Amino acid sequence: MKEVAIGIDIGGTNTVLGVVDKKGNCIAKDSIVTCGYGSVDKYIETIAEKIKELLSAIGTQCKVKGIGIGAPNGNCKRGTIEYAPNLKWKGIIPISESLCKYFDFPVLVTNDANAAAIGEMVYGSAKKMKDFIVVTLGTGLGSGFVSGGKLLCGHNGFAGELGHTIAVIDGRSCGCGRKGCLETYVSATGITRTVIEMLGKNKTKSILRNYSNSNINSKRIYEAALQKDKLALEAFEFTGKMLGLKLSDTVAITNPEAIFLFGGLAKAGDLIFKPTKEAMDNNMLNIFKNSCALLPSGIDENNAAVLGAASLIWKANDM
Amino acid sequence: MKEVAIGIDIGGTNTVLGVVDKKGNCIAKDSIVTCGYGSVDKYIETIAEKIKELLSAIGTQCKVKGIGIGAPNGNCKRGTIEYAPNLKWKGIIPISESLCKYFDFPVLVTNDANAAAIGEMVYGSAKKMKDFIVVTLGTGLGSGFVSGGKLLCGHNGFAGELGHTIAVIDGRSCGCGRKGCLETYVSATGITRTVIEMLGKNKTKSILRNYSNSNINSKRIYEAALQKDKLALEAFEFTGKMLGLKLSDTVAITNPEAIFLFGGLAKAGDLIFKPTKEAMDNNMLNIFKNSCALLPSGIDENNAAVLGAASLIWKANDM
Repeated sequence: MKEVAIGIDIGGTNTVLGVVDKKGNCIAKDSIVTCGYGSVDKYIETIAEKIKELLSAIGTQCKVKGIGIGAPNGNCKRGTIEYAPNLKWKGIIPISESLCKYFDFPVLVTNDANAAAIGEMVYGSAKKMKDFIVVTLGTGLGSGFVSGGKLLCGHNGFAGELGHTIAVIDGRSCGCGRKGCLETYVSATGITRTVIEMLGKNKTKSILRNYSNSNINSKRIYEAALQKDKLALEAFEFTGKMLGLKLSDTVAITNPEAIFLFGGLAKAGDLIFKPTKEAMDNNMLNIFKNSCALLPSGIDENNAAVLGAASLIWKANDM
Repeated sequence: MKEVAIGIDIGGTNTVLGVVDKKGNCIAKDSIVTCGYGSVDKYIETIAEKIKELLSAIGTQCKVKGIGIGAPNGNCKRGTIEYAPNLKWKGIIPISESLCKYFDFPVLVTNDANAAAIGEMVYGSAKKMKDFIVVTLGTGLGSGFVSGGKLLCGHNGFAGELGHTIAVIDGRSCGCGRKGCLETYVSATGITRTVIEMLGKNKTKSILRNYSNSNINSKRIYEAALQKDKLALEAFEFTGKMLGLKLSDTVAITNPEAIFLFGGLAKAGDLIFKPTKEAMDNNMLNIFKNSCALLPSGIDENNAAVLGAASLIWKANDM
């Protein structure tokens, strides 16, 4: 009988559910609107119903090994979602415990970046690696650390907040209430802030001057850079430099064999990889020089989040 | 039969050997001059002889479980000492392999800070902890990370170089060839550099003006601070602030339940703990606030290095 895992990706807008086999094939998939439910109990009940529908659709030829959940502020130690800023339910949601009531297989939870890291190990380009980092570059900057083949969870299950290490003392205001966090520079919103700052600071000609500030976004910066727009190219250079500097510090702490970049900004390819790699090389402590590869994620992008969530089940003993 | 481990602390000047039981009692101890041997083979041969002498002195009532070595640039994955700047033998010394030829029990190697971390877990104040960091404040700044109960080694066995993360971009020149490394600010030599800078920069009255620059050291700064010397107190404040800032970043990555300060500078007590704690609190990401204790090491200082080295043997499965 074929073994499968259920992966659930909880986002601020949608919740996507998928049934995934060991090879990373997404056999069945569905989604619901995350904020479409009055109470968190009703939301979880609906997830349970959807899972049952998916399982009855694929028939009895599969054996379900468990449910893996990737969620904002998902806590891998406690099976909870804690104070997620982009979910309407505040406080601590005991999602593992609640969902367990409907099924007799394990329910594991972690945050999106940790799910991406485990996903990379199970389905992506880190299959043979034991020490690596996945950096997710989306609206914010997330990171998942794998060390000695195991997810680095930390004492409270919140390890891997690289996006909230300080890149610039007294730098840009961050949503976390502090200043200068890496994600205020290196993320889709970070590069947008960089461009807006640059547009104000200098008079470089730029396609991006045609947009109002509120209409500038990372996609448009990317498109401008492809057209050799000087200001857009400089913004990518700066973003990569900020990321590379912090990554060389991070390598000094955890000594990984590779760092994977994942998410929207990573798709800019050389525009982001080149300056990041350069800054890493220039700032790396001697003993780590050329010891850590900077690589794109090897996960199929369409189902990445669901695959990452499902992968928790195959690595249940390594969390 | 009583089980014992042999701990060897290799320093630039002396090599100390001790036979240690599970409770941390150092039953027998000896030392040799590290640089007193022409070849590394002769040095290792002498270590082997000293071990045999120690073992014959304690008689046959003990069962030796293994040899643990703490050494500068000791590599826990390869059992080697690699390019240690303060040893006269350059290149890679395969010390584990060489010493194994003389004995039929395992020989484990790691660097001083990792040995201190394992020592803290076996004999010190981290006995019940699974996620913590030990920061050693000596001539330089070393660190050992324990995560999920296991030493964080990294891909090449060089994890834990917190002293060489960048505290100030384009800051003080470091022995590693780069600039602004944390250890150029936070260490015995770091605080000395701070004081010398301060003496040049301002005209604050200070006992320390009575010394030539080359006679200022961390001990004298400590004594001046005890006498409420304003400049010395400011130097401790600054040092603690630099350390605390970096520690709050480090907490965001590995989420430890405690950070232990160990070594000369840590003995200054509140002078260093208070400003460090304050800077940690002020810069900590919300989810980590009050989650990480800052503590003095609980290891008996006299035999700390030998205990740390010996402790590797009791945690051999966690490396």
